[in-house]
Amino acid sequence: MLAVLLAVGLDPKRSIIFHQDSNAMHTELAWILGCITPTGKLRRMTSWKTRLAQSRNANSESEVDESLLNAGLLTYPVLQAADILLYRATHVPVGEDQRQHLELSRDIADTFNRTFKKPLFPLPTSLITPAKRILSLKDPTSKMSKSAPDASSRILLTDPPSLIASKIRGAVTDSITTGITYDPVARPGTSNLLAILAAIEDVEIESVARRCAEANMSHADLKREVTERVDALFEKPRAEFERIRGDPGYLEQVAKEGAEKAREISAVTMEQVRQRVGLA
Amino acid sequence: MLAVLLAVGLDPKRSIIFHQDSNAMHTELAWILGCITPTGKLRRMTSWKTRLAQSRNANSESEVDESLLNAGLLTYPVLQAADILLYRATHVPVGEDQRQHLELSRDIADTFNRTFKKPLFPLPTSLITPAKRILSLKDPTSKMSKSAPDASSRILLTDPPSLIASKIRGAVTDSITTGITYDPVARPGTSNLLAILAAIEDVEIESVARRCAEANMSHADLKREVTERVDALFEKPRAEFERIRGDPGYLEQVAKEGAEKAREISAVTMEQVRQRVGLA
Repeated sequence: MLAVLLAVGLDPKRSIIFHQDSNAMHTELAWILGCITPTGKLRRMTSWKTRLAQSRNANSESEVDESLLNAGLLTYPVLQAADILLYRATHVPVGEDQRQHLELSRDIADTFNRTFKKPLFPLPTSLITPAKRILSLKDPTSKMSKSAPDASSRILLTDPPSLIASKIRGAVTDSITTGITYDPVARPGTSNLLAILAAIEDVEIESVARRCAEANMSHADLKREVTERVDALFEKPRAEFERIRGDPGYLEQVAKEGAEKAREISAVTMEQVRQRVGLA
Repeated sequence: MLAVLLAVGLDPKRSIIFHQDSNAMHTELAWILGCITPTGKLRRMTSWKTRLAQSRNANSESEVDESLLNAGLLTYPVLQAADILLYRATHVPVGEDQRQHLELSRDIADTFNRTFKKPLFPLPTSLITPAKRILSLKDPTSKMSKSAPDASSRILLTDPPSLIASKIRGAVTDSITTGITYDPVARPGTSNLLAILAAIEDVEIESVARRCAEANMSHADLKREVTERVDALFEKPRAEFERIRGDPGYLEQVAKEGAEKAREISAVTMEQVRQRVGLA
Protein backbone atom coordinates (compact mmCIF):
# COMPACT_ATOMS: atom_id res chain seq x y z
CA MET A 1 0.00 0.00 0.00
CA LEU A 2 2.80 2.38 0.95
CA ALA A 3 4.64 1.50 -2.27
CA VAL A 4 1.48 2.29 -4.27
CA LEU A 5 1.13 5.70 -2.62
CA LEU A 6 4.75 6.54 -3.42
CA ALA A 7 4.43 5.14 -6.95
CA VAL A 8 1.47 7.39 -7.81
CA GLY A 9 3.46 10.41 -6.74
CA LEU A 10 3.26 11.12 -3.01
CA ASP A 11 6.62 12.60 -2.06
CA PRO A 12 7.80 11.76 1.47
CA LYS A 13 9.79 15.01 1.45
CA ARG A 14 6.53 16.95 1.16
CA SER A 15 4.00 14.53 2.65
CA ILE A 16 4.11 12.73 5.99
CA ILE A 17 3.19 9.11 5.26
CA PHE A 18 2.84 6.50 8.01
CA HIS A 19 0.95 3.47 9.20
CA GLN A 20 -1.94 4.73 11.29
CA ASP A 21 -1.41 2.03 13.91
CA SER A 22 2.13 3.25 14.57
CA ASN A 23 0.61 6.25 16.35
CA ALA A 24 -1.52 5.25 19.35
CA MET A 25 -2.68 8.86 19.77
CA HIS A 26 -5.31 8.23 17.06
CA THR A 27 -7.27 5.84 19.27
CA GLU A 28 -6.54 7.93 22.36
CA LEU A 29 -8.09 11.04 20.80
CA ALA A 30 -10.91 8.94 19.32
CA TRP A 31 -11.81 7.80 22.83
CA ILE A 32 -12.02 11.37 24.09
CA LEU A 33 -14.01 12.57 21.08
CA GLY A 34 -16.42 9.64 21.50
CA CYS A 35 -17.28 11.07 24.91
CA ILE A 36 -18.73 14.21 23.26
CA THR A 37 -20.38 12.53 20.26
CA PRO A 38 -24.05 11.51 20.56
CA THR A 39 -24.81 7.99 19.33
CA GLY A 40 -27.74 9.40 17.33
CA LYS A 41 -25.36 11.28 15.05
CA LEU A 42 -23.40 8.08 14.42
CA ARG A 43 -26.54 6.10 13.64
CA ARG A 44 -27.47 8.66 11.00
CA MET A 45 -24.24 8.02 9.05
CA THR A 46 -24.86 6.52 5.61
CA SER A 47 -22.05 4.00 6.11
CA TRP A 48 -23.83 2.61 9.21
CA LYS A 49 -27.23 2.56 7.53
CA THR A 50 -25.80 0.82 4.46
CA ARG A 51 -24.21 -1.94 6.50
CA LEU A 52 -27.43 -2.32 8.45
CA ALA A 53 -29.38 -2.74 5.19
CA GLN A 54 -26.78 -5.23 3.89
CA SER A 55 -26.95 -7.37 7.01
CA ARG A 56 -30.76 -7.31 6.86
CA ASN A 57 -30.67 -8.48 3.24
CA ALA A 58 -28.11 -11.19 3.95
CA ASN A 59 -30.18 -12.59 6.78
CA SER A 60 -33.60 -11.83 5.25
CA GLU A 61 -35.13 -11.85 8.69
CA SER A 62 -36.93 -8.92 10.16
CA GLU A 63 -35.39 -9.37 13.59
CA VAL A 64 -31.89 -8.70 12.29
CA ASP A 65 -31.27 -5.25 13.62
CA GLU A 66 -28.39 -2.97 14.41
CA SER A 67 -27.71 -4.73 17.71
CA LEU A 68 -25.71 -7.37 15.80
CA LEU A 69 -23.37 -4.82 14.23
CA ASN A 70 -20.15 -4.10 16.09
CA ALA A 71 -19.38 -0.98 18.08
CA GLY A 72 -16.28 -0.37 15.94
CA LEU A 73 -18.49 0.11 12.90
CA LEU A 74 -20.71 2.60 14.73
CA THR A 75 -17.80 4.61 16.12
CA TYR A 76 -15.56 4.40 13.05
CA PRO A 77 -16.44 7.97 11.95
CA VAL A 78 -15.18 9.16 15.35
CA LEU A 79 -11.81 7.51 14.67
CA GLN A 80 -11.80 9.24 11.28
CA ALA A 81 -12.45 12.56 13.03
CA ALA A 82 -9.51 11.83 15.34
CA ASP A 83 -7.33 10.98 12.29
CA ILE A 84 -8.06 14.46 10.96
CA LEU A 85 -8.17 16.56 14.14
CA LEU A 86 -5.02 15.02 15.66
CA TYR A 87 -3.05 17.01 13.07
CA ARG A 88 -5.36 20.01 13.19
CA ALA A 89 -5.90 19.56 9.45
CA THR A 90 -7.64 22.39 7.61
CA HIS A 91 -8.28 20.64 4.27
CA VAL A 92 -9.03 16.96 3.69
CA PRO A 93 -9.04 15.40 0.20
CA VAL A 94 -11.95 12.93 0.10
CA GLY A 95 -14.28 11.24 -2.32
CA GLU A 96 -17.87 12.41 -2.35
CA ASP A 97 -19.00 9.41 -0.29
CA GLN A 98 -16.87 10.69 2.60
CA ARG A 99 -18.47 14.15 2.64
CA GLN A 100 -20.85 13.18 5.46
CA HIS A 101 -18.00 11.85 7.60
CA LEU A 102 -16.09 15.07 7.12
CA GLU A 103 -19.20 17.01 8.11
CA LEU A 104 -19.27 14.97 11.33
CA SER A 105 -15.58 15.76 11.94
CA ARG A 106 -16.37 19.47 11.67
CA ASP A 107 -19.26 18.96 14.04
CA ILE A 108 -17.12 17.13 16.61
CA ALA A 109 -14.35 19.75 16.33
CA ASP A 110 -16.92 22.49 16.92
CA THR A 111 -18.43 20.66 19.91
CA PHE A 112 -14.95 20.20 21.41
CA ASN A 113 -14.07 23.88 20.90
CA ARG A 114 -17.33 25.01 22.53
CA THR A 115 -17.32 22.45 25.36
CA PHE A 116 -13.78 23.17 26.51
CA LYS A 117 -13.95 26.90 25.85
CA LYS A 118 -10.51 27.72 24.42
CA PRO A 119 -10.87 26.68 20.72
CA LEU A 120 -8.29 24.12 19.63
CA PHE A 121 -9.38 22.57 16.34
CA PRO A 122 -9.82 24.36 13.01
CA LEU A 123 -13.01 23.17 11.30
CA PRO A 124 -11.69 20.99 8.44
CA THR A 125 -12.92 21.57 4.89
CA SER A 126 -13.28 18.83 2.29
CA LEU A 127 -11.39 18.91 -0.98
CA ILE A 128 -13.60 16.84 -3.27
CA THR A 129 -11.77 15.22 -6.19
CA PRO A 130 -12.93 16.33 -9.67
CA ALA A 131 -13.79 12.68 -10.49
CA LYS A 132 -16.49 12.37 -7.90
CA ARG A 133 -17.08 8.66 -7.73
CA ILE A 134 -15.65 5.67 -9.56
CA LEU A 135 -18.08 2.79 -9.26
CA SER A 136 -17.77 -0.98 -9.09
CA LEU A 137 -17.29 -2.68 -12.48
CA LYS A 138 -19.66 -5.43 -11.34
CA ASP A 139 -22.29 -3.43 -9.47
CA PRO A 140 -22.18 0.14 -10.78
CA THR A 141 -24.61 1.32 -8.10
CA SER A 142 -21.96 1.04 -5.38
CA LYS A 143 -18.47 2.51 -5.29
CA MET A 144 -15.37 0.71 -6.52
CA SER A 145 -13.90 -0.64 -3.30
CA LYS A 146 -10.71 -2.40 -2.29
CA SER A 147 -12.70 -4.40 0.26
CA ALA A 148 -15.59 -5.61 -1.97
CA PRO A 149 -15.73 -9.43 -2.09
CA ASP A 150 -15.49 -9.64 -5.90
CA ALA A 151 -11.92 -8.74 -6.97
CA SER A 152 -13.01 -8.32 -10.59
CA SER A 153 -15.08 -5.29 -9.51
CA ARG A 154 -11.98 -3.09 -9.12
CA ILE A 155 -8.88 -2.05 -11.03
CA LEU A 156 -5.64 -2.16 -9.04
CA LEU A 157 -2.31 -0.58 -9.93
CA THR A 158 -0.78 -3.91 -8.97
CA ASP A 159 -2.89 -5.87 -11.51
CA PRO A 160 -1.01 -7.03 -14.62
CA PRO A 161 -2.31 -5.32 -17.83
CA SER A 162 -3.91 -8.53 -19.11
CA LEU A 163 -5.98 -8.84 -15.92
CA ILE A 164 -7.07 -5.21 -16.15
CA ALA A 165 -8.13 -5.77 -19.76
CA SER A 166 -10.21 -8.77 -18.76
CA LYS A 167 -11.80 -6.92 -15.81
CA ILE A 168 -12.85 -4.05 -18.07
CA ARG A 169 -14.12 -6.47 -20.74
CA GLY A 170 -16.24 -8.06 -18.02
CA ALA A 171 -17.59 -4.76 -16.70
CA VAL A 172 -21.39 -4.66 -16.40
CA THR A 173 -22.94 -2.30 -18.95
CA ASP A 174 -26.44 -2.48 -20.51
CA SER A 175 -28.16 -3.79 -23.63
CA ILE A 176 -29.05 -0.41 -25.07
CA THR A 177 -27.57 -0.54 -28.58
CA THR A 178 -28.36 2.93 -29.87
CA GLY A 179 -24.90 4.18 -28.97
CA ILE A 180 -23.00 5.54 -25.99
CA THR A 181 -24.73 8.12 -23.79
CA TYR A 182 -24.07 9.44 -20.29
CA ASP A 183 -27.04 8.61 -18.07
CA PRO A 184 -25.92 7.55 -14.60
CA VAL A 185 -29.44 6.52 -13.54
CA ALA A 186 -30.58 4.45 -16.53
CA ARG A 187 -27.09 3.36 -17.68
CA PRO A 188 -24.87 3.23 -14.58
CA GLY A 189 -22.30 0.78 -16.00
CA THR A 190 -21.81 2.66 -19.25
CA SER A 191 -21.73 5.98 -17.42
CA ASN A 192 -19.08 4.64 -15.03
CA LEU A 193 -16.79 3.74 -17.95
CA LEU A 194 -17.27 7.28 -19.29
CA ALA A 195 -16.47 8.65 -15.84
CA ILE A 196 -13.23 6.66 -15.76
CA LEU A 197 -12.23 8.04 -19.18
CA ALA A 198 -13.12 11.59 -18.13
CA ALA A 199 -11.13 11.24 -14.90
CA ILE A 200 -8.05 10.05 -16.81
CA GLU A 201 -8.36 12.80 -19.42
CA ASP A 202 -9.31 15.36 -16.77
CA VAL A 203 -12.27 16.66 -18.80
CA GLU A 204 -16.05 16.79 -18.29
CA ILE A 205 -17.84 13.45 -18.58
CA GLU A 206 -20.39 14.95 -21.01
CA SER A 207 -17.68 15.91 -23.49
CA VAL A 208 -16.27 12.38 -23.42
CA ALA A 209 -19.78 11.01 -23.98
CA ARG A 210 -20.28 13.34 -26.94
CA ARG A 211 -17.04 12.24 -28.56
CA CYS A 212 -17.93 8.54 -28.13
CA ALA A 213 -21.39 9.08 -29.59
CA GLU A 214 -19.99 11.02 -32.57
CA ALA A 215 -17.53 8.18 -33.22
CA ASN A 216 -20.46 5.71 -33.15
CA MET A 217 -18.68 3.61 -30.55
CA SER A 218 -20.08 0.30 -29.27
CA HIS A 219 -19.68 -0.92 -25.70
CA ALA A 220 -16.78 -3.07 -26.92
CA ASP A 221 -15.12 0.03 -28.46
CA LEU A 222 -15.64 1.98 -25.26
CA LYS A 223 -14.15 -0.81 -23.15
CA ARG A 224 -11.16 -1.04 -25.51
CA GLU A 225 -10.55 2.70 -25.16
CA VAL A 226 -10.86 2.57 -21.35
CA THR A 227 -8.38 -0.33 -21.26
CA GLU A 228 -5.87 1.57 -23.42
CA ARG A 229 -6.19 4.71 -21.35
CA VAL A 230 -5.81 2.86 -18.04
CA ASP A 231 -2.79 1.03 -19.47
CA ALA A 232 -1.13 4.28 -20.48
CA LEU A 233 -1.98 5.91 -17.15
CA PHE A 234 -0.56 3.00 -15.16
CA GLU A 235 2.61 2.50 -17.19
CA LYS A 236 4.95 4.77 -15.27
CA PRO A 237 3.49 4.28 -11.76
CA ARG A 238 3.53 0.51 -12.30
CA ALA A 239 7.23 0.54 -13.14
CA GLU A 240 7.80 2.86 -10.19
CA PHE A 241 5.83 0.50 -7.96
CA GLU A 242 7.95 -2.47 -9.02
CA ARG A 243 11.12 -0.50 -8.33
CA ILE A 244 10.00 0.71 -4.87
CA ARG A 245 8.54 -2.67 -3.93
CA GLY A 246 11.96 -4.16 -4.52
CA ASP A 247 13.49 -1.89 -1.90
CA PRO A 248 11.89 -2.87 1.44
CA GLY A 249 14.58 -0.97 3.35
CA TYR A 250 13.44 2.28 1.73
CA LEU A 251 9.78 1.56 2.52
CA GLU A 252 10.61 0.84 6.15
CA GLN A 253 12.61 4.04 6.32
CA VAL A 254 9.76 6.13 4.88
CA ALA A 255 7.25 4.55 7.28
CA LYS A 256 9.53 5.02 10.27
CA GLU A 257 10.37 8.65 9.55
CA GLY A 258 6.74 9.38 8.74
CA ALA A 259 5.57 7.86 12.02
CA GLU A 260 8.13 9.88 13.98
CA LYS A 261 7.03 13.15 12.36
CA ALA A 262 3.36 12.25 12.81
CA ARG A 263 3.86 11.48 16.50
CA GLU A 264 5.75 14.74 17.00
CA ILE A 265 2.91 16.81 15.56
CA SER A 266 0.12 14.89 17.24
CA ALA A 267 1.85 14.99 20.63
CA VAL A 268 1.47 18.78 20.57
CA THR A 269 -2.25 18.45 19.86
CA MET A 270 -2.76 15.78 22.52
CA GLU A 271 -0.99 17.91 25.12
CA GLN A 272 -3.56 20.64 24.42
CA VAL A 273 -6.44 18.16 24.41
CA ARG A 274 -5.37 16.72 27.76
CA GLN A 275 -5.11 20.16 29.30
CA ARG A 276 -8.57 21.12 28.12
CA VAL A 277 -10.36 17.95 29.23
CA GLY A 278 -8.54 17.88 32.57
CA LEU A 279 -6.11 14.99 32.07
CA ALA A 280 -2.99 17.15 32.43
CA MET B 1 -6.93 9.77 44.74
CA LEU B 2 -3.55 8.07 44.58
CA ALA B 3 -2.81 9.22 48.14
CA VAL B 4 -6.11 7.71 49.30
CA LEU B 5 -5.30 4.35 47.70
CA LEU B 6 -1.90 4.29 49.40
CA ALA B 7 -3.39 5.48 52.70
CA VAL B 8 -5.90 2.61 52.84
CA GLY B 9 -3.10 0.12 52.39
CA LEU B 10 -2.20 -0.50 48.74
CA ASP B 11 1.52 -1.18 48.70
CA PRO B 12 3.34 0.00 45.57
CA LYS B 13 5.90 -2.75 46.17
CA ARG B 14 3.18 -5.36 45.67
CA SER B 15 0.63 -3.48 43.54
CA ILE B 16 1.21 -1.60 40.30
CA ILE B 17 -0.63 1.71 40.67
CA PHE B 18 -0.81 4.26 37.85
CA HIS B 19 -2.96 6.87 36.14
CA GLN B 20 -4.88 5.07 33.40
CA ASP B 21 -4.30 7.90 30.93
CA SER B 22 -0.53 7.48 31.24
CA ASN B 23 -0.85 4.28 29.21
CA ALA B 24 -2.32 4.89 25.74
CA MET B 25 -2.54 1.13 25.15
CA HIS B 26 -5.83 1.11 27.07
CA THR B 27 -7.64 3.09 24.38
CA GLU B 28 -5.72 1.28 21.63
CA LEU B 29 -6.92 -2.13 22.83
CA ALA B 30 -10.40 -0.71 23.49
CA TRP B 31 -10.59 0.30 19.84
CA ILE B 32 -9.71 -3.19 18.67
CA LEU B 33 -12.11 -4.87 21.11
CA GLY B 34 -14.90 -2.52 20.00
CA CYS B 35 -14.53 -4.00 16.52
CA ILE B 36 -15.66 -7.42 17.83
CA THR B 37 -18.34 -6.21 20.27
CA PRO B 38 -21.94 -6.00 19.03
CA THR B 39 -23.72 -2.75 19.94
CA GLY B 40 -26.68 -4.80 21.16
CA LYS B 41 -24.62 -6.20 24.03
CA LEU B 42 -23.61 -2.69 25.03
CA ARG B 43 -27.19 -1.43 24.94
CA ARG B 44 -28.18 -4.21 27.34
CA MET B 45 -25.77 -2.96 30.02
CA THR B 46 -27.55 -1.71 33.15
CA SER B 47 -25.30 1.37 33.30
CA TRP B 48 -26.49 2.44 29.82
CA LYS B 49 -30.14 1.71 30.58
CA THR B 50 -29.95 3.62 33.86
CA ARG B 51 -28.52 6.72 32.21
CA LEU B 52 -31.14 6.47 29.50
CA ALA B 53 -33.89 6.36 32.14
CA GLN B 54 -32.30 9.31 33.99
CA SER B 55 -32.13 11.46 30.89
CA ARG B 56 -35.74 10.59 30.07
CA ASN B 57 -36.84 11.63 33.55
CA ALA B 58 -34.81 14.84 33.44
CA ASN B 59 -36.35 15.86 30.15
CA SER B 60 -39.79 14.33 30.74
CA GLU B 61 -40.36 14.18 27.02
CA SER B 62 -41.07 10.99 25.18
CA GLU B 63 -38.82 11.89 22.27
CA VAL B 64 -35.72 11.89 24.48
CA ASP B 65 -34.06 8.66 23.45
CA GLU B 66 -30.68 7.08 23.47
CA SER B 67 -29.58 9.02 20.40
CA LEU B 68 -28.72 11.97 22.69
CA LEU B 69 -26.38 9.93 24.87
CA ASN B 70 -22.72 9.97 23.92
CA ALA B 71 -20.82 7.13 22.26
CA GLY B 72 -18.31 7.15 25.13
CA LEU B 73 -21.06 6.11 27.53
CA LEU B 74 -22.16 3.26 25.26
CA THR B 75 -18.64 1.95 24.72
CA TYR B 76 -17.35 2.54 28.25
CA PRO B 77 -17.70 -1.15 29.19
CA VAL B 78 -15.39 -1.95 26.25
CA LEU B 79 -12.74 0.36 27.72
CA GLN B 80 -13.21 -1.43 31.04
CA ALA B 81 -12.68 -4.77 29.27
CA ALA B 82 -9.47 -3.36 27.77
CA ASP B 83 -8.37 -2.15 31.24
CA ILE B 84 -8.65 -5.75 32.44
CA LEU B 85 -7.51 -7.72 29.40
CA LEU B 86 -4.49 -5.51 28.69
CA TYR B 87 -2.85 -7.11 31.73
CA ARG B 88 -4.35 -10.54 31.11
CA ALA B 89 -5.91 -10.31 34.57
CA THR B 90 -7.40 -13.51 35.98
CA HIS B 91 -9.22 -12.04 39.01
CA VAL B 92 -10.85 -8.62 39.29
CA PRO B 93 -12.08 -7.20 42.62
CA VAL B 94 -15.38 -5.41 41.91
CA GLY B 95 -18.55 -4.36 43.63
CA GLU B 96 -21.70 -6.25 42.78
CA ASP B 97 -22.89 -3.50 40.44
CA GLN B 98 -19.88 -4.20 38.20
CA ARG B 99 -20.64 -7.91 37.84
CA GLN B 100 -22.39 -7.39 34.49
CA HIS B 101 -19.44 -5.42 33.11
CA LEU B 102 -17.07 -8.18 34.13
CA GLU B 103 -19.35 -10.70 32.46
CA LEU B 104 -19.02 -8.62 29.27
CA SER B 105 -15.23 -8.59 29.62
CA ARG B 106 -15.24 -12.40 29.77
CA ASP B 107 -17.48 -12.44 26.75
CA ILE B 108 -15.20 -10.12 24.75
CA ALA B 109 -12.10 -12.11 25.80
CA ASP B 110 -13.78 -15.31 24.65
CA THR B 111 -14.84 -13.76 21.33
CA PHE B 112 -11.29 -12.51 20.74
CA ASN B 113 -9.80 -15.93 21.54
CA ARG B 114 -12.21 -17.69 19.16
CA THR B 115 -12.03 -15.10 16.38
CA PHE B 116 -8.24 -15.01 16.20
CA LYS B 117 -7.77 -18.72 16.89
CA LYS B 118 -4.71 -18.82 19.16
CA PRO B 119 -6.21 -18.00 22.60
CA LEU B 120 -4.62 -14.97 24.25
CA PHE B 121 -6.79 -13.80 27.11
CA PRO B 122 -7.67 -15.74 30.26
CA LEU B 123 -11.36 -15.28 31.08
CA PRO B 124 -11.31 -12.97 34.11
CA THR B 125 -13.25 -13.91 37.25
CA SER B 126 -14.82 -11.39 39.60
CA LEU B 127 -13.84 -11.18 43.25
CA ILE B 128 -16.94 -9.70 44.84
CA THR B 129 -16.29 -7.82 48.07
CA PRO B 130 -18.01 -9.28 51.18
CA ALA B 131 -19.80 -5.95 51.66
CA LYS B 132 -21.77 -6.14 48.46
CA ARG B 133 -23.08 -2.64 48.09
CA ILE B 134 -22.87 0.52 50.16
CA LEU B 135 -25.71 2.82 49.18
CA SER B 136 -26.19 6.57 49.02
CA LEU B 137 -26.96 8.21 52.36
CA LYS B 138 -29.50 10.43 50.62
CA ASP B 139 -31.08 7.96 48.18
CA PRO B 140 -30.54 4.46 49.55
CA THR B 141 -31.89 2.87 46.36
CA SER B 142 -28.74 3.82 44.40
CA LYS B 143 -25.13 3.15 45.25
CA MET B 144 -22.90 5.52 47.18
CA SER B 145 -21.03 7.27 44.41
CA LYS B 146 -18.14 9.72 44.19
CA SER B 147 -19.80 11.33 41.16
CA ALA B 148 -23.33 11.82 42.56
CA PRO B 149 -24.33 15.51 42.56
CA ASP B 150 -25.11 15.62 46.31
CA ALA B 151 -21.83 15.47 48.26
CA SER B 152 -23.68 14.70 51.50
CA SER B 153 -24.70 11.34 50.02
CA ARG B 154 -21.20 9.88 50.46
CA ILE B 155 -18.52 9.47 53.12
CA LEU B 156 -14.99 10.35 52.02
CA LEU B 157 -11.74 9.49 53.74
CA THR B 158 -10.77 13.11 53.14
CA ASP B 159 -13.82 14.47 55.01
CA PRO B 160 -13.10 15.91 58.49
CA PRO B 161 -14.75 13.84 61.27
CA SER B 162 -17.29 16.59 62.05
CA LEU B 163 -18.49 16.55 58.43
CA ILE B 164 -18.80 12.76 58.46
CA ALA B 165 -20.83 12.96 61.68
CA SER B 166 -23.20 15.47 60.11
CA LYS B 167 -23.54 13.42 56.90
CA ILE B 168 -24.47 10.31 58.88
CA ARG B 169 -26.87 12.31 61.08
CA GLY B 170 -28.55 13.50 57.87
CA ALA B 171 -28.76 10.03 56.33
CA VAL B 172 -32.24 9.12 55.09
CA THR B 173 -33.84 6.40 57.22
CA ASP B 174 -37.54 5.78 57.80
CA SER B 175 -40.23 6.58 60.37
CA ILE B 176 -40.69 3.03 61.60
CA THR B 177 -40.20 3.37 65.37
CA THR B 178 -40.52 -0.23 66.50
CA GLY B 179 -36.77 -0.68 66.54
CA ILE B 180 -33.95 -1.50 64.18
CA THR B 181 -34.47 -4.33 61.68
CA TYR B 182 -32.68 -5.36 58.50
CA ASP B 183 -35.11 -5.10 55.58
CA PRO B 184 -33.39 -3.71 52.45
CA VAL B 185 -36.69 -3.42 50.53
CA ALA B 186 -38.97 -1.77 53.09
CA ARG B 187 -36.20 0.01 55.06
CA PRO B 188 -33.36 0.72 52.61
CA GLY B 189 -31.83 3.62 54.59
CA THR B 190 -31.78 1.78 57.92
CA SER B 191 -30.50 -1.38 56.24
CA ASN B 192 -27.71 0.59 54.57
CA LEU B 193 -26.48 1.87 57.94
CA LEU B 194 -26.49 -1.73 59.20
CA ALA B 195 -24.57 -2.79 56.09
CA ILE B 196 -21.93 -0.14 56.80
CA LEU B 197 -21.55 -1.38 60.38
CA ALA B 198 -21.35 -5.01 59.23
CA ALA B 199 -18.73 -4.13 56.60
CA ILE B 200 -16.56 -2.37 59.18
CA GLU B 201 -16.92 -5.22 61.70
CA ASP B 202 -16.59 -7.81 58.95
CA VAL B 203 -19.60 -9.79 60.18
CA GLU B 204 -23.02 -10.73 58.75
CA ILE B 205 -25.51 -7.86 58.51
CA GLU B 206 -28.19 -9.96 60.25
CA SER B 207 -26.06 -10.40 63.35
CA VAL B 208 -25.47 -6.64 63.55
CA ALA B 209 -29.21 -6.08 63.19
CA ARG B 210 -29.93 -8.56 65.97
CA ARG B 211 -27.52 -6.83 68.34
CA CYS B 212 -29.05 -3.39 67.61
CA ALA B 213 -32.57 -4.75 68.15
CA GLU B 214 -31.58 -6.41 71.41
CA ALA B 215 -30.04 -3.15 72.59
CA ASN B 216 -33.32 -1.37 71.76
CA MET B 217 -31.45 1.15 69.64
CA SER B 218 -33.19 4.11 67.98
CA HIS B 219 -32.18 5.52 64.60
CA ALA B 220 -30.22 8.20 66.49
CA ASP B 221 -28.39 5.50 68.45
CA LEU B 222 -27.62 3.59 65.27
CA LYS B 223 -26.28 6.69 63.55
CA ARG B 224 -24.12 7.47 66.57
CA GLU B 225 -22.63 3.99 66.47
CA VAL B 226 -21.98 4.18 62.71
CA THR B 227 -20.25 7.54 63.19
CA GLU B 228 -18.04 6.16 65.95
CA ARG B 229 -17.12 3.10 63.94
CA VAL B 230 -16.31 5.09 60.79
CA ASP B 231 -14.24 7.49 62.90
CA ALA B 232 -12.22 4.65 64.39
CA LEU B 233 -11.84 2.99 60.99
CA PHE B 234 -10.62 6.19 59.34
CA GLU B 235 -8.24 7.31 62.08
CA LYS B 236 -5.04 5.66 60.87
CA PRO B 237 -5.66 5.94 57.09
CA ARG B 238 -6.60 9.61 57.54
CA ALA B 239 -3.29 10.36 59.28
CA GLU B 240 -1.51 8.32 56.62
CA PHE B 241 -3.32 10.27 53.91
CA GLU B 242 -2.23 13.60 55.41
CA ARG B 243 1.36 12.39 55.59
CA ILE B 244 1.44 11.08 51.99
CA ARG B 245 -0.43 14.08 50.60
CA GLY B 246 2.31 16.26 52.02
CA ASP B 247 4.92 14.46 49.91
CA PRO B 248 4.04 15.16 46.25
CA GLY B 249 7.46 13.95 45.13
CA TYR B 250 6.68 10.47 46.49
CA LEU B 251 3.27 10.42 44.79
CA GLU B 252 4.82 11.41 41.46
CA GLN B 253 7.43 8.71 41.88
CA VAL B 254 4.82 6.01 42.62
CA ALA B 255 2.72 7.09 39.63
CA LYS B 256 5.74 7.21 37.33
CA GLU B 257 7.12 3.83 38.32
CA GLY B 258 3.64 2.30 38.21
CA ALA B 259 3.07 3.65 34.70
CA GLU B 260 6.39 2.27 33.51
CA LYS B 261 5.64 -1.20 34.88
CA ALA B 262 2.10 -1.11 33.49
CA ARG B 263 3.35 -0.13 30.03
CA GLU B 264 5.96 -2.89 30.12
CA ILE B 265 3.36 -5.57 30.84
CA SER B 266 0.74 -4.23 28.47
CA ALA B 267 3.26 -3.87 25.63
CA VAL B 268 3.69 -7.65 25.68
CA THR B 269 -0.08 -8.15 25.41
CA MET B 270 -0.43 -5.57 22.65
CA GLU B 271 2.34 -7.20 20.63
CA GLN B 272 0.33 -10.43 20.74
CA VAL B 273 -2.93 -8.62 19.94
CA ARG B 274 -1.37 -6.90 16.95
CA GLN B 275 0.01 -10.16 15.61
CA ARG B 276 -3.36 -11.86 15.91
CA VAL B 277 -5.44 -9.12 14.29
CA GLY B 278 -2.89 -8.56 11.53
CA LEU B 279 -1.35 -5.24 12.54
CA ALA B 280 2.15 -6.68 13.04
